[in-house]
Amino acid sequence: MMNITRQLRPSLAKALMPTAMRAMSADSKLVELTMNEKTGIATVTMNRPPVNSLNLELLQGLLKAFEGLEDDRKCRGMILTSSSPTVFSAGLDIMEMYKPKPDRVKEFWTTLQDVWLALYGSSFPTVAAINGHSPAGGCLLSLCCEYRIMCPNYSIGLNETKLGIVAPKWFMSSMLGAIPYREAELALTSGRMFSTDEALKIGLIDEVASDKADAIAKSEKFLSQFAKIHPIARKLTKLNLRHSALEWMQENKELDLNIFISFVGQPIVQKSLEKYLEGLKAKQAK
Amino acid sequence: MMNITRQLRPSLAKALMPTAMRAMSADSKLVELTMNEKTGIATVTMNRPPVNSLNLELLQGLLKAFEGLEDDRKCRGMILTSSSPTVFSAGLDIMEMYKPKPDRVKEFWTTLQDVWLALYGSSFPTVAAINGHSPAGGCLLSLCCEYRIMCPNYSIGLNETKLGIVAPKWFMSSMLGAIPYREAELALTSGRMFSTDEALKIGLIDEVASDKADAIAKSEKFLSQFAKIHPIARKLTKLNLRHSALEWMQENKELDLNIFISFVGQPIVQKSLEKYLEGLKAKQAK
Amino acid sequence: MMNITRQLRPSLAKALMPTAMRAMSADSKLVELTMNEKTGIATVTMNRPPVNSLNLELLQGLLKAFEGLEDDRKCRGMILTSSSPTVFSAGLDIMEMYKPKPDRVKEFWTTLQDVWLALYGSSFPTVAAINGHSPAGGCLLSLCCEYRIMCPNYSIGLNETKLGIVAPKWFMSSMLGAIPYREAELALTSGRMFSTDEALKIGLIDEVASDKADAIAKSEKFLSQFAKIHPIARKLTKLNLRHSALEWMQENKELDLNIFISFVGQPIVQKSLEKYLEGLKAKQAK
Repeated sequence: MMNITRQLRPSLAKALMPTAMRAMSADSKLVELTMNEKTGIATVTMNRPPVNSLNLELLQGLLKAFEGLEDDRKCRGMILTSSSPTVFSAGLDIMEMYKPKPDRVKEFWTTLQDVWLALYGSSFPTVAAINGHSPAGGCLLSLCCEYRIMCPNYSIGLNETKLGIVAPKWFMSSMLGAIPYREAELALTSGRMFSTDEALKIGLIDEVASDKADAIAKSEKFLSQFAKIHPIARKLTKLNLRHSALEWMQENKELDLNIFISFVGQPIVQKSLEKYLEGLKAKQAK
Repeated sequence: MMNITRQLRPSLAKALMPTAMRAMSADSKLVELTMNEKTGIATVTMNRPPVNSLNLELLQGLLKAFEGLEDDRKCRGMILTSSSPTVFSAGLDIMEMYKPKPDRVKEFWTTLQDVWLALYGSSFPTVAAINGHSPAGGCLLSLCCEYRIMCPNYSIGLNETKLGIVAPKWFMSSMLGAIPYREAELALTSGRMFSTDEALKIGLIDEVASDKADAIAKSEKFLSQFAKIHPIARKLTKLNLRHSALEWMQENKELDLNIFISFVGQPIVQKSLEKYLEGLKAKQAK
Repeated sequence: MMNITRQLRPSLAKALMPTAMRAMSADSKLVELTMNEKTGIATVTMNRPPVNSLNLELLQGLLKAFEGLEDDRKCRGMILTSSSPTVFSAGLDIMEMYKPKPDRVKEFWTTLQDVWLALYGSSFPTVAAINGHSPAGGCLLSLCCEYRIMCPNYSIGLNETKLGIVAPKWFMSSMLGAIPYREAELALTSGRMFSTDEALKIGLIDEVASDKADAIAKSEKFLSQFAKIHPIARKLTKLNLRHSALEWMQENKELDLNIFISFVGQPIVQKSLEKYLEGLKAKQAK
């Protein structure tokens, strides 16, 4: 197994450059990509301490990783995980929405759409090894994968309504790919966060792992079942099943972007974000 | 808590007037609406003895109650229940379909459509406290709510095929919001009525309550979880999820009405209703 | 109970003629149709030894049987089963796809579409008594029925990806009528075959029977519940529920045919079929 972020894939390394430049040191690059040359299983690790908040650069790193794997004939599967000991991803970075610059916030949302398209519609099989809390956008990333394995005593859910916001249609369809409509409606309207055990019971995750190493091992086991499946037949089967959600996004990126931009532009939303950030600062000052 | 049917909402009281005039006394008004001023939880009680058959006036009463709550900023949730000790609602009043006057039967069906639109698409969270049998149209009303709590040893279901009729598309989509397609197909084609325990097992209801008071208490507990959820985020989340069913109805009211009118107009249907009513009379005469 | 294939329905017998001519003797006709005159329950038995591979003639036999029952006012239900002791149906006959003649392969696929339309959209209630293995096309036939009863220790599933091919959209929607999307995606992408017990647990079948006689008895019991249901109300309820899948097929037969023809015409597919058939021959030679 070797790290291919720079060594093997110069085009990918170049694409990740802005991230690397910001990160200042090789250890703190935002997305780590390793490939097991023997099995063809890639591991994509989110690495934006402390909680993998999804800002533009982290999303760009994920997008380039997914697109790189899409072009990599050796890739037979991908595990998405986190370098944090307690958080998979805390969701969208609130700083991208607070007093946003028009160009950047547009690029931010468009990149999130593209990450979703690349991950939800990937050719290769995908597993989320959820080694920590996974609210909102973090939950969304895991729902794009085909299988979810989670460590004990964390929480997961699309809790947007609890934050006073509305999960976009594609967040909803991602959840409906995992749990029945009836459960999704209850979960989404109440913004419910599920414990690992509750998530297993309802089908929001598929397996529980004792720790991150166990989650990775179980992910590899899940992916190994596809070793004898023809990758093109598998890919077409997956894309046919996910067709209508993917097609909706492809046809409505502009509309969906405008809804988000207009939401973020509301004075009441900006005030609410300001309050939230002041609360965070006060906490940190203590 | 106070009764606001007349005192607080003159426009609502006026709308309910025809009902009240028919009902002759204040005690027998067809729909009772109370509001807990502290919690913002409204209770809508169907009160058309003996079995809450849904005739035009009862439907009009329900519609005005739902529309009134929609306009009421204080409303944070609604419980739908029945004043009968053994029946939630027996479903559509057969007298509305037997030898119907063209204008009235048209208004009857259109009002049923509007009740469905108002309840299935309400901004505020809704619970059915099902304190009695709930066949056909009674089951439909409960399925429009977001949560169902039922007292023991009653029955519930869309049993239209057992009556020789076909549940309209929106009855079906309401059921598909609660139970999986596979179960809904079996239930709908066989017109199956479920006992309280069977309904819980299949997901047609969410909780069992020991009696009406317990059902109301459990309903209030369910609704209380939304106290801290931003009502607009919640409303938009619900309406986005229910969008396609609501949109279908809005676009097909006329078509759906014509199907019903043409069904009721068939001589074979009228003969069958006549027979059914004669059977009822014979029973009552004994 | 009597066999009506020839005696009662000359038009049906005529339609089955090519089959009968090939089959050489009455005992080996490809589809047996019996009718219980008392209950109105028909039994359609696939009888193409050794494994009921679905070739053009077997499909034509099934189509004529289903169409005949559709026209038969006495028919109140149908049981689909197999004369083989260990196989329900092995799925599509690979010989129809290997070096195919253009006219025949076109008729083959069109007939499969028509069989699906006739069975998935039948007026009468349908049960599959699955008395043996049921992969791919065999599983599809059972999924078209409204209820599935299976004998122990067999396997069932849409295992197309394991064969390097892609289950068409209507295979997928048939499976989605039985099990939740989440389970269907896992099953279809991995081409998973389920044991009888696993199939019961996941909902791919509804009941387990000890043997074929028990499967038939249980099928009759399932169908008997419809004796008191008005057949037209039942039929319309079923067709309304299955409307969108049926409509898709009616509108896309040509497109779906072209996809299949172009798939079969690929040199790589022909080579793969050749290899597979050589493997079979080698096995038989041992």
